[in-house]
Amino acid sequence: MDRPDLAQIREAAERLRPIIHRTPIVTSQLLDEAAGRRVFLKAECLQKAGSFKIRGAATAIQALGAEARRAGVVAHSSGNHAQAVALAARHFGVDAVVVMPEDANRLKVAATAAYRATVVQDGVTTANRAERADQYVKQGRYLIHPFDDWSVITGQGTLGLEIAEDAPEDIEMVLFPIGGGGLISGSTIALRALRQDVRIIGVEPAACAAAKASREAGRLVSLPPAPTVADGARVSVGEKAWSVISELVDDIVSVDDQEILAAVRFILTRTKLVVEPTGAMTVAALLSRRFRGGAAVAVLSGGNLDPETLAIPARGPSCP
Amino acid sequence: MDRPDLAQIREAAERLRPIIHRTPIVTSQLLDEAAGRRVFLKAECLQKAGSFKIRGAATAIQALGAEARRAGVVAHSSGNHAQAVALAARHFGVDAVVVMPEDANRLKVAATAAYRATVVQDGVTTANRAERADQYVKQGRYLIHPFDDWSVITGQGTLGLEIAEDAPEDIEMVLFPIGGGGLISGSTIALRALRQDVRIIGVEPAACAAAKASREAGRLVSLPPAPTVADGARVSVGEKAWSVISELVDDIVSVDDQEILAAVRFILTRTKLVVEPTGAMTVAALLSRRFRGGAAVAVLSGGNLDPETLAIPARGPSCP
Repeated sequence: MDRPDLAQIREAAERLRPIIHRTPIVTSQLLDEAAGRRVFLKAECLQKAGSFKIRGAATAIQALGAEARRAGVVAHSSGNHAQAVALAARHFGVDAVVVMPEDANRLKVAATAAYRATVVQDGVTTANRAERADQYVKQGRYLIHPFDDWSVITGQGTLGLEIAEDAPEDIEMVLFPIGGGGLISGSTIALRALRQDVRIIGVEPAACAAAKASREAGRLVSLPPAPTVADGARVSVGEKAWSVISELVDDIVSVDDQEILAAVRFILTRTKLVVEPTGAMTVAALLSRRFRGGAAVAVLSGGNLDPETLAIPARGPSCP
Repeated sequence: MDRPDLAQIREAAERLRPIIHRTPIVTSQLLDEAAGRRVFLKAECLQKAGSFKIRGAATAIQALGAEARRAGVVAHSSGNHAQAVALAARHFGVDAVVVMPEDANRLKVAATAAYRATVVQDGVTTANRAERADQYVKQGRYLIHPFDDWSVITGQGTLGLEIAEDAPEDIEMVLFPIGGGGLISGSTIALRALRQDVRIIGVEPAACAAAKASREAGRLVSLPPAPTVADGARVSVGEKAWSVISELVDDIVSVDDQEILAAVRFILTRTKLVVEPTGAMTVAALLSRRFRGGAAVAVLSGGNLDPETLAIPARGPSCP
């Protein structure tokens, strides 16, 4: 398929209805006070398998023909995409192999295995995982890419559709995390069609700010993976996502690891939601008060937090 | 007032409507699998000020006459009741003094102060806090008791009313944590009136199982406060609550600290909700699979978890 339009995202949303949760929008007076504006949290951390990734994975697997479904799927991921593909494949009765690095978080590996995917870890590293997955593609399996795939982007766009339908009329901006760019690109297509005047802002980790670098260079720039607590955003933006972001997203900002960890703790202690670092970047940006303007939606994209992350010392507004 | 009936709890719910959240009922496939039954989580951890306590505090303050409101209120608490009284008093424009032990959790003290109550800590201990609060009563302030007060119990009963209205028709049991007993006693009055056949079960920490001891003795038994991670349940049941519990609650069970901590982690990692130990006791009881029968509602009574609690080692189903 090509770049989806609003109608295709709406069709995907209809097909996803029996599979996913429609996640709530949550508010907090203490957050409003700390951010200096009204903030609406799209609590996608409460989504099945703990993140928005189930939207794209299920949409892509549902789009497969009968033969491809019989052949099975493969994915490579160190985290949320792995769990999402495993759960979506189980839903459709499709066999799934997930290639995960040997040092992947053990909670995420356990969750992926609990959804009954075959987890392949022997000798897998972040550097060779795509290549290892490719061996399974050569055996006939269909690759469910974590972001650079229009079906996946269509599925992620259903989150933007829900915001357009559920958020108050007077919101002025929507903030998304950026990793590979699947979520913000799909969601922006839906939002641009339904909420023309809303500013759309991408947030990425300062340590791996590929979208910002691309915007400055005027073309897609890849950066080497860099260490950041926002493990879901260590990748560079994909080509398909970039074609949308460069055209339709208003602004891109970055937040550092200390700001991200402070936001994780703020959300945990004040709103009682578990958000992983990548999922808290939008709130980190709002707590920095670097924006003018009115009410904002911040997407909490995932909740697969390793409790040990909370042991990392953080400064900032969450730690009085 | 005397023991409330369903009509009075309904009136309290109407008055609370503009002040509190109607908290959602959340489900998790992984929890259902681990508990061996369908489980519906009443996510009261998402309530304002982080726990059900705002229901009772706001109901009690709203019931005060103009003169009492002018004189102000006082409460003693090491935790959730402190925050709830501070927030409810601010809502009604009533001055509040909250007496908190010197070793109270600093996050809870900070939150109470953020709601603009006067926090009194100098020389306050768990043992002398009631006495210290009494000094303020002698100066004319009205005491908002954490549980042994029919207005407070009426407010807490609105949580049971929401369960009766929102839970699926085929639930067979509802589990509540027991500390002072305000929540389970008020809620049981509402549930018994609307869901006659539902089993109502109280859960308390093994280290401080006053309700179970009372049931066995056939009369209200007070136990000395004992160390348990379930800090909201270190108190013994109050007289008013006991009069309801002894008559209308079907069963009382206890869970140990390891089971409670495992449940906190399970809820955090699988459902992305932040629940404090006292609030997780109901899920701990379900994960122990000590019940026969069908679908259950488990009340997650509060979310004011100190992130440091997660550093305590736990064994059990949350730690693969």
